[in-house]
Amino acid sequence: MFIHNKRLQYTVRVAGSNPGLANLLLEQFGGPQGELAAAMRYFTQAISEDDPGRKDMLLDIATEELSHLEVIGSLVAMLNKGAKGPLAEGIDREATLYREITGAGNDSHVTQVLYGAGAPLTNSGSVPWTAAYIDTIGEPTADLRSNIAAEARAKIVYERLIALTDDPGVKEALGFLMTREIAHQKSFEKALYAIEPNFPPGKLAGDPRFANVYFDMSQGEGDVHGPWNDQSEFQVISDRAQQGAVDGGDGSASVGLTDHEAETLEAAAARTQSNPTAKPITGADLGSTLSGGPGRLQ
Amino acid sequence: MFIHNKRLQYTVRVAGSNPGLANLLLEQFGGPQGELAAAMRYFTQAISEDDPGRKDMLLDIATEELSHLEVIGSLVAMLNKGAKGPLAEGIDREATLYREITGAGNDSHVTQVLYGAGAPLTNSGSVPWTAAYIDTIGEPTADLRSNIAAEARAKIVYERLIALTDDPGVKEALGFLMTREIAHQKSFEKALYAIEPNFPPGKLAGDPRFANVYFDMSQGEGDVHGPWNDQSEFQVISDRAQQGAVDGGDGSASVGLTDHEAETLEAAAARTQSNPTAKPITGADLGSTLSGGPGRLQ
Amino acid sequence: MFIHNKRLQYTVRVAGSNPGLANLLLEQFGGPQGELAAAMRYFTQAISEDDPGRKDMLLDIATEELSHLEVIGSLVAMLNKGAKGPLAEGIDREATLYREITGAGNDSHVTQVLYGAGAPLTNSGSVPWTAAYIDTIGEPTADLRSNIAAEARAKIVYERLIALTDDPGVKEALGFLMTREIAHQKSFEKALYAIEPNFPPGKLAGDPRFANVYFDMSQGEGDVHGPWNDQSEFQVISDRAQQGAVDGGDGSASVGLTDHEAETLEAAAARTQSNPTAKPITGADLGSTLSGGPGRLQ
Amino acid sequence: MFIHNKRLQYTVRVAGSNPGLANLLLEQFGGPQGELAAAMRYFTQAISEDDPGRKDMLLDIATEELSHLEVIGSLVAMLNKGAKGPLAEGIDREATLYREITGAGNDSHVTQVLYGAGAPLTNSGSVPWTAAYIDTIGEPTADLRSNIAAEARAKIVYERLIALTDDPGVKEALGFLMTREIAHQKSFEKALYAIEPNFPPGKLAGDPRFANVYFDMSQGEGDVHGPWNDQSEFQVISDRAQQGAVDGGDGSASVGLTDHEAETLEAAAARTQSNPTAKPITGADLGSTLSGGPGRLQ
Amino acid sequence: MFIHNKRLQYTVRVAGSNPGLANLLLEQFGGPQGELAAAMRYFTQAISEDDPGRKDMLLDIATEELSHLEVIGSLVAMLNKGAKGPLAEGIDREATLYREITGAGNDSHVTQVLYGAGAPLTNSGSVPWTAAYIDTIGEPTADLRSNIAAEARAKIVYERLIALTDDPGVKEALGFLMTREIAHQKSFEKALYAIEPNFPPGKLAGDPRFANVYFDMSQGEGDVHGPWNDQSEFQVISDRAQQGAVDGGDGSASVGLTDHEAETLEAAAARTQSNPTAKPITGADLGSTLSGGPGRLQ
Amino acid sequence: MFIHNKRLQYTVRVAGSNPGLANLLLEQFGGPQGELAAAMRYFTQAISEDDPGRKDMLLDIATEELSHLEVIGSLVAMLNKGAKGPLAEGIDREATLYREITGAGNDSHVTQVLYGAGAPLTNSGSVPWTAAYIDTIGEPTADLRSNIAAEARAKIVYERLIALTDDPGVKEALGFLMTREIAHQKSFEKALYAIEPNFPPGKLAGDPRFANVYFDMSQGEGDVHGPWNDQSEFQVISDRAQQGAVDGGDGSASVGLTDHEAETLEAAAARTQSNPTAKPITGADLGSTLSGGPGRLQ
Repeated sequence: MFIHNKRLQYTVRVAGSNPGLANLLLEQFGGPQGELAAAMRYFTQAISEDDPGRKDMLLDIATEELSHLEVIGSLVAMLNKGAKGPLAEGIDREATLYREITGAGNDSHVTQVLYGAGAPLTNSGSVPWTAAYIDTIGEPTADLRSNIAAEARAKIVYERLIALTDDPGVKEALGFLMTREIAHQKSFEKALYAIEPNFPPGKLAGDPRFANVYFDMSQGEGDVHGPWNDQSEFQVISDRAQQGAVDGGDGSASVGLTDHEAETLEAAAARTQSNPTAKPITGADLGSTLSGGPGRLQ
Repeated sequence: MFIHNKRLQYTVRVAGSNPGLANLLLEQFGGPQGELAAAMRYFTQAISEDDPGRKDMLLDIATEELSHLEVIGSLVAMLNKGAKGPLAEGIDREATLYREITGAGNDSHVTQVLYGAGAPLTNSGSVPWTAAYIDTIGEPTADLRSNIAAEARAKIVYERLIALTDDPGVKEALGFLMTREIAHQKSFEKALYAIEPNFPPGKLAGDPRFANVYFDMSQGEGDVHGPWNDQSEFQVISDRAQQGAVDGGDGSASVGLTDHEAETLEAAAARTQSNPTAKPITGADLGSTLSGGPGRLQ
Repeated sequence: MFIHNKRLQYTVRVAGSNPGLANLLLEQFGGPQGELAAAMRYFTQAISEDDPGRKDMLLDIATEELSHLEVIGSLVAMLNKGAKGPLAEGIDREATLYREITGAGNDSHVTQVLYGAGAPLTNSGSVPWTAAYIDTIGEPTADLRSNIAAEARAKIVYERLIALTDDPGVKEALGFLMTREIAHQKSFEKALYAIEPNFPPGKLAGDPRFANVYFDMSQGEGDVHGPWNDQSEFQVISDRAQQGAVDGGDGSASVGLTDHEAETLEAAAARTQSNPTAKPITGADLGSTLSGGPGRLQ
Repeated sequence: MFIHNKRLQYTVRVAGSNPGLANLLLEQFGGPQGELAAAMRYFTQAISEDDPGRKDMLLDIATEELSHLEVIGSLVAMLNKGAKGPLAEGIDREATLYREITGAGNDSHVTQVLYGAGAPLTNSGSVPWTAAYIDTIGEPTADLRSNIAAEARAKIVYERLIALTDDPGVKEALGFLMTREIAHQKSFEKALYAIEPNFPPGKLAGDPRFANVYFDMSQGEGDVHGPWNDQSEFQVISDRAQQGAVDGGDGSASVGLTDHEAETLEAAAARTQSNPTAKPITGADLGSTLSGGPGRLQ
Repeated sequence: MFIHNKRLQYTVRVAGSNPGLANLLLEQFGGPQGELAAAMRYFTQAISEDDPGRKDMLLDIATEELSHLEVIGSLVAMLNKGAKGPLAEGIDREATLYREITGAGNDSHVTQVLYGAGAPLTNSGSVPWTAAYIDTIGEPTADLRSNIAAEARAKIVYERLIALTDDPGVKEALGFLMTREIAHQKSFEKALYAIEPNFPPGKLAGDPRFANVYFDMSQGEGDVHGPWNDQSEFQVISDRAQQGAVDGGDGSASVGLTDHEAETLEAAAARTQSNPTAKPITGADLGSTLSGGPGRLQ
Repeated sequence: MFIHNKRLQYTVRVAGSNPGLANLLLEQFGGPQGELAAAMRYFTQAISEDDPGRKDMLLDIATEELSHLEVIGSLVAMLNKGAKGPLAEGIDREATLYREITGAGNDSHVTQVLYGAGAPLTNSGSVPWTAAYIDTIGEPTADLRSNIAAEARAKIVYERLIALTDDPGVKEALGFLMTREIAHQKSFEKALYAIEPNFPPGKLAGDPRFANVYFDMSQGEGDVHGPWNDQSEFQVISDRAQQGAVDGGDGSASVGLTDHEAETLEAAAARTQSNPTAKPITGADLGSTLSGGPGRLQ
């Protein structure tokens, strides 16, 4: 059960209204790397988790992320507070209002016109939050790696936001939120390595013919060797002929069909067959002028 | 530049038509953990990457994932091939066709009716692929962790699909694709640790007051200690009073407003003020019968 | 700040595994009328709300909805628990596994293959939750009406789910959740009518020429009179000629253009002008057989 | 059957081109509270409605909303008309064109580059319209409440747009559209209350133990009493201990498993068990520098 | 202005309830090739169209498509009508209800549980309709081609649905709708070829060096010649060396940077540089067991 | 199998950083008419295609489109390269950074804050790419028309982008990409007309009663005759009475119900019946002030 205490986890002190900055901060409210994504990622893992330790940790962190959602949302709400009245009450002249919500440095018009200067669950480009952002698949050796990566991403987006504001109260609160992502990443790393072994993830071993192969698929000026394809660990295959049909077959695709399936397929093929020797007049021929003639591009 | 060789990277031999299985395999074609997501994840990282080693590796692996997209797509196409003709040609009786595309063990009706028994870029629930699945943010210490996690997830979904089929050709091809995820994870791990230091990701250090704190937000029967909150590494805060307003403030949110902003806000507040001592009759009162009376539920 | 207590708000007792029912229950977990939508709807309203009474109420109810999210999620997790192992561990035969996840009465294959028999934030059709479900606009006389409607909808979806299961523990927990929607609707109704006046919502009065008019746009057999178009309250306009251009103008659309705008528009028009007297041969003519001839349909 | 008359329902007179304003007006064309959402909401209700009176009303209003879609779309088209030529014909210098479509006060570049200065079904943030905006569930006591709320929201967004323009023709047409939402709300209210009783919505009564309870989930400075939790109507529960496990149970979640289910679950648990007493070295340890050391943030 | 006549454009006679078939028919109601997509595609083109002939045609066909939306929606509503009562009224036993909405041949559970057996604007996989389906770009020589293609697609999906039902009334109504797509395609073809020239679309001529070149990018067994790459019309380039950097340059990408830009880029590069000669221990090394060892797959 | 050569298909030379232009170019990277949509459209058609000629052509063009994706992505990456460092390294003052990413002529803040100045798969309005953009249905006479239209659209969007930049290297590369769309359209036209007949698409003939009818649904000032409704080809029906119920029936919708279905439907109808003679007091009545009274609008 969740309960709520009216004190925020971190006090929010904003120097003055700034809907443009509020808009950027939406990235961490309703954006893909934001706090709702974090909270829901861990919460949904927690309710299906049977390992008591991980379940407890996931609930601890999910709950904290909800509290962070409240902090970042409160930052947005404070930055937008001065913009709530004018549009709602229509006190200012229209031209002033129009200029204020569409001016340079302010891409907050969706937040203002559609959401009334509130804190919508969108990113800074007004894309609504979607659970497609959550990549939980229900296997802890994968999910913990996903969590580690998610914390790293959130940490970076906070860095960028911190670099964009000189409001000390906003900077300080963002710094707190950023720091907590570091701490959470540490916990998830500990939890991952408390599963032994954890690599390869899951139950099946890889096929030993292919588990240590590195296919050098991109060739030309710029080929580089490094730890990721070092021959002490990987068998590097650069020969184009050996990169295809690595099973030793002919590299084709086939399926066994019943007679009835084959017949209906032939009927479809006959109806839509392409005549390779036709010289058809086409719609483009009908509609074309002298293409490639002198034009503005040249 | 991409070029194409008609041999698949792995030969596809499917025993017989099975649109229901084809539908499940769509997870790795147009699903969130599938090969298009992998290919596009690494490709988009590659074109913005300035480090020559990582750029080369990302292009190598992106290109291989495109070749895997072709393998899994070919599996889907072969499993659906027998179903292409009947609906297109209308040769069978309607009742037979209806039964075949909606029968138990077969949730492929969207693929058949809408996509003509092809290989659509959807997951097995017919949700169209979206770039919201890609979590690249343009910082290598975060993106490489995202790649590691993505490979772990893809490996697991392949495991599950392998567990669902006894067609030896399908099983073998899926085993190859699964194994390659292991190899790619290894390469991404090497690339991450070739950046020193790589933790915490990004440039800013955390605030030392909060970087090693563990907030025990979820309490009650089921609290567990483990490496993720071990007191040798973390300062665990369980006291509810110390979990809020950790900055030492009052945990409230505030903003400086101009006089004009404050006035318009007051006008809005006055117009929509809630009378806390009202005893209003409501629409629910108008419309209610005896609520809570005896009903079917009891 | 949110905190968490490990006791659920309502004890969950599930008789036995039932992934098919779990799938249906996802409607109230990650579906449009579900508990995440409710929690986020009220939470986002709360953080931008300046009226102290409404803010408190919104936080109370948002927090309770999060606790309901946990209850419905726990129901899903329990119904899926028996399905977690087989696919992950691959212990059963493939044919058995395939039959179990695709059998009649069970449309949970996405939950199992993609989400590992967890509790994903999708609806029962596997569509990911989206913030597009939330219709908050930041004006209390509108938002409270939206909340009233949302509670009504959630109540009904719970009714339908209750009608579908005979597991007494599931039925009882769903009954609790359903009942709470009734209580919340009551509170939101009280809060709406504590604003006086609250109709029409917002600040601007309507144009008196059109505020009490009912346009009888759909005509023919089936025209009915009722309170919604009663002549004591509405002026009903059925004459087709009076339904258009109600401002008294000519019903056309026009704009003042600068000379430069007009010139470029004319250039575009000239380039793409349609020759109304042409008798063109078309691509369809090129490609057609005798259309309308005897076919299978007749 | 729908038929069309070329006269608009309201004459559109636009003073001059203004793609920036056109962009904002898209909220009511292809936005969540716009006219397509309204038209489709009522139309889809109408075709499944069996009550003759409601069916007629829903068709009347749906048809009018389609006519409103045409009015708002015509406003957008007129405001964009001057922008149609320059980009299509490439007559102006590139720098001029670039400045015009990306200048301050103009966030219409998507409309221009992608949609050719037309009227796309997106909101003002270029998010495509989605049927996820429609919350119809097929129960009239819920759907009518949804309609009432939708009309209230649309009325408010029109208010905001009216506040943003001083073009008298645009203002007047928006005023007409806004007023009609008031009239429609009245009709839907009448239709709701013509169903007796209409609260609680649906068929099942609530559980009397919980139907009049108010859980005071959010506590701290800011707790307020009001009609929504008045003790004359609600039993307020503030004691944290009484807020959990309200059924009198232990607040846990459980399910009956078959022996086979339990065994496979144990196998999965054993494979992924977390060792709570481990002191693992982690990837973060490998990759870390002195975290918490002096950094730019401090 | 749209007006409505209660007579459908085509009479709907359905033999009996069939929610499974209703679900499939949703493809043409709320699916990508369905009638809403058609109506909105032409309607949005119409309101921005300045050519009087095309504008009239687009309004004619858009209006007819709305009438088709009503016909297909009425088919869905009739097929679902028998399912409306049981779930709403809870008269049958739970097991019966559950079996009926999840049984083989019936994937309509979303329509029933979430939408109350109505006619939701989703496709048959329950994916909500999105304006992303509409590809209008505001240039008639492109839009008319898009319309021609859209009519062809809709015609085919109707064919498939006709093949799936033996209910004569459903078959006949679908046959009418299918036939109208043929007629509409003819009109759009005529309109396209009434623009002279219409190919290449738009204003700019192509670069003559590349306008008639065919790059043979996919090579191997299966290379075929046909009209699409016939040497009488196309210059076919099969030499891999001539397929890249076709401008004669080196095929690299570069940009001019300011000194300040170059410096900050170098700082970022230094911080995240990859050490190509490192032999790092990785997280995978820490967490691995003997990979490639004997496993279940072999 | 795909393989990669590090030379681009067209050399990319960008004069200088320009994130605002990069943002516009995203339309052809991750937008609906962009290169990923093109590549995936043809690739997915190819893997299900059985006709050897079309399969080869689709693979040739799909592969080239992937190479174009790389070219346009490289343009975006170069235009953004100068912006990569400042935000990542936080070297500049906050106010400078804020101004640069939100300034007039630059709507790239999502690309910078969320995606680190990379090349995300979104359009220029930050909407993530979705497979809903792909309209393949698995019937060649429809799919080839879709491809023809798609190439026409892409050609036009390139035209618009070319008109917006005076950077000669960008202009030249865009000109190459635009030209290739012309060439591809030609090939698809040839392939369509190599199928004989190809109209009407598919197998079923239309119903001759309706295949040559033009319903004049939109009437009033502005009715135009043209080739699309010329009486030599079409039977034009303008009489409103003949436009409805064209089958000769009564234009109603009906279904056969079982007794049990009818009974439960009646129970639902009785519960929710609307009383057409009621004069109910409504929530709006409770909450209203004098509507239509003097207000700001007048």
